[in-house]
Amino acid sequence: MSNTDQQSFSFLYDRERIKIEKILIDAFKNRKPDSLYEPVKYILSSGGKRLRPLLVLLSAKAVGGSFSKVYNASVAVELLHNFTLVHDDIMDNADKRRGRLTLHKKYDENTAILAGDSLLSVAYEYLLKDCNGRTKYVVSAFTKGLVEVCEGQSLEKDFETTNNVSIYDYKLMIMKKTAAMSEMCCTIGALLGGGSPKEIKAVSLFGKNIGIAFQIQDDLLDITGVEKEFGKKVGGDLIEGKKTFLFISALSKAKGNERKKLLNVIKNKGIKPSEVNEYKNIYEKLEVIDDSKKEIKSYTDRALTQLKILKKEKDRKIFQWLADSLIKRIK
Amino acid sequence: MSNTDQQSFSFLYDRERIKIEKILIDAFKNRKPDSLYEPVKYILSSGGKRLRPLLVLLSAKAVGGSFSKVYNASVAVELLHNFTLVHDDIMDNADKRRGRLTLHKKYDENTAILAGDSLLSVAYEYLLKDCNGRTKYVVSAFTKGLVEVCEGQSLEKDFETTNNVSIYDYKLMIMKKTAAMSEMCCTIGALLGGGSPKEIKAVSLFGKNIGIAFQIQDDLLDITGVEKEFGKKVGGDLIEGKKTFLFISALSKAKGNERKKLLNVIKNKGIKPSEVNEYKNIYEKLEVIDDSKKEIKSYTDRALTQLKILKKEKDRKIFQWLADSLIKRIK
Repeated sequence: MSNTDQQSFSFLYDRERIKIEKILIDAFKNRKPDSLYEPVKYILSSGGKRLRPLLVLLSAKAVGGSFSKVYNASVAVELLHNFTLVHDDIMDNADKRRGRLTLHKKYDENTAILAGDSLLSVAYEYLLKDCNGRTKYVVSAFTKGLVEVCEGQSLEKDFETTNNVSIYDYKLMIMKKTAAMSEMCCTIGALLGGGSPKEIKAVSLFGKNIGIAFQIQDDLLDITGVEKEFGKKVGGDLIEGKKTFLFISALSKAKGNERKKLLNVIKNKGIKPSEVNEYKNIYEKLEVIDDSKKEIKSYTDRALTQLKILKKEKDRKIFQWLADSLIKRIK
Repeated sequence: MSNTDQQSFSFLYDRERIKIEKILIDAFKNRKPDSLYEPVKYILSSGGKRLRPLLVLLSAKAVGGSFSKVYNASVAVELLHNFTLVHDDIMDNADKRRGRLTLHKKYDENTAILAGDSLLSVAYEYLLKDCNGRTKYVVSAFTKGLVEVCEGQSLEKDFETTNNVSIYDYKLMIMKKTAAMSEMCCTIGALLGGGSPKEIKAVSLFGKNIGIAFQIQDDLLDITGVEKEFGKKVGGDLIEGKKTFLFISALSKAKGNERKKLLNVIKNKGIKPSEVNEYKNIYEKLEVIDDSKKEIKSYTDRALTQLKILKKEKDRKIFQWLADSLIKRIK
């Protein structure tokens, strides 16, 4: 891909992100009571990549639609995403999100539960604004994403008390928790953009596979990230004892002392920050960092293969650029 | 109304409630993971009046539709209602619901947050099953109900720390927290039943006004209920220091020592169980029990006035029977 292409896509992303930010802010401007909507505005003002709205926009365009008809739907998926963040942060007892206090730490748990519920309610409200035809399909796709994200979160919670999580279990979990959401973004974009059944299926599968790649990349970054760029503590997943792609792969390969070390992570529900490097070495020795990279590449390729059906080269290219950016991202 | 009519309506309610129960149970039969859906089944198996589904059914019928086309939508409103109960119980730190442990006490708070989210997701799924035409209007009405119930819950939470709650504030709160929900039930029933705009407006206003009457009746029952029939502690609202219709009315009328007594409820965030009778006497002396009854009658009349537009006398009668039952209910 040429530098000019890359610059033009990066410019487009920045431009559209600004538009999305504005609609997000406006969505809560005149709502009362403040006790409900101030916390909602707090979480929405903390930034974020806004990748899910971008998927809606690009999917609509890729099938011949226009951005202008799916801005509200784009905002809807971002609101849904933030609903999951707010409730997940309570469940994970997380202190920080995007460098700021999580909603339930800034306010309290009750406020955060209700703010999450409210984000979801307004998500549907915004989705409906762009439903002019195909409403049942669009709302069904959105709802399917919501049902699955709840199931995925429950599966991930189960992992905390399950010692023998397999790669199969892990993939089922991320398909529901992460990939169902990116798949849904592409489906509703393509539906609202007027795509044919074949086009809708293709961009949906792009969304699903890129979501899986994205999550494994997330797991990988936790250990290969550079603290300064990463923005969070490197090795955080190990410290918390999370069953990531790397950890599960490592455990399935390890023998002897290394296996014992890995089992200790489960037994002690995590490791000390001072031990992160030691475990990174184990991951490297067992080649699970390479395994992860291969897995990310494989799912990204599967995602991109779907795009052959798209009529315009430019549409394929921008998805390619997005996929590249996700793989190369540092945070 | 004749005894025969009453018996036939009561029979119809029992029959339809059994059907609703069955669909509710079937809705979660084959879903996984159990960690998510067992708690959901727990809350749904604890009974309840299932009045909201009945409103959907009757509204559809009243405008010429049939029950058979709105069973899934009826189940959807009950799921939405249970979503609010599960999350509200966490926020209120309630121990018991319908004589059993609340969901977050039976399991834990995280499980209850996620079970609530899941109830809402499946609510939309069921609503969509009955959307064959008018989908955008139906989902919009449902979503409007959800937005308002979140706002109403937030307003009620605000009451806990607000000393000068007025009757106006109170009515705004119950309109959002209770009446928006019964209004929505009637709206979607009438929409799916194929009602004309005038019919939809009429049954919606029936739902709204009957919801207000229902909530004031709820406040009244807390103090006039007979423990054995009521199923909960009489005077519970006073013990918890809740700003009910009776309390706010009493405070606005009281002078001297009675006013001081009422202000103590606010100051101490509630009263002792042994003091309930004393406060009941104050309510009686200030005639706020009579005031509440008049208010309930007034909103019930407003609800019933709307029904003049209905073509069949039987449809008007069954709503009349429902309104009577709500006023005469003892729990």
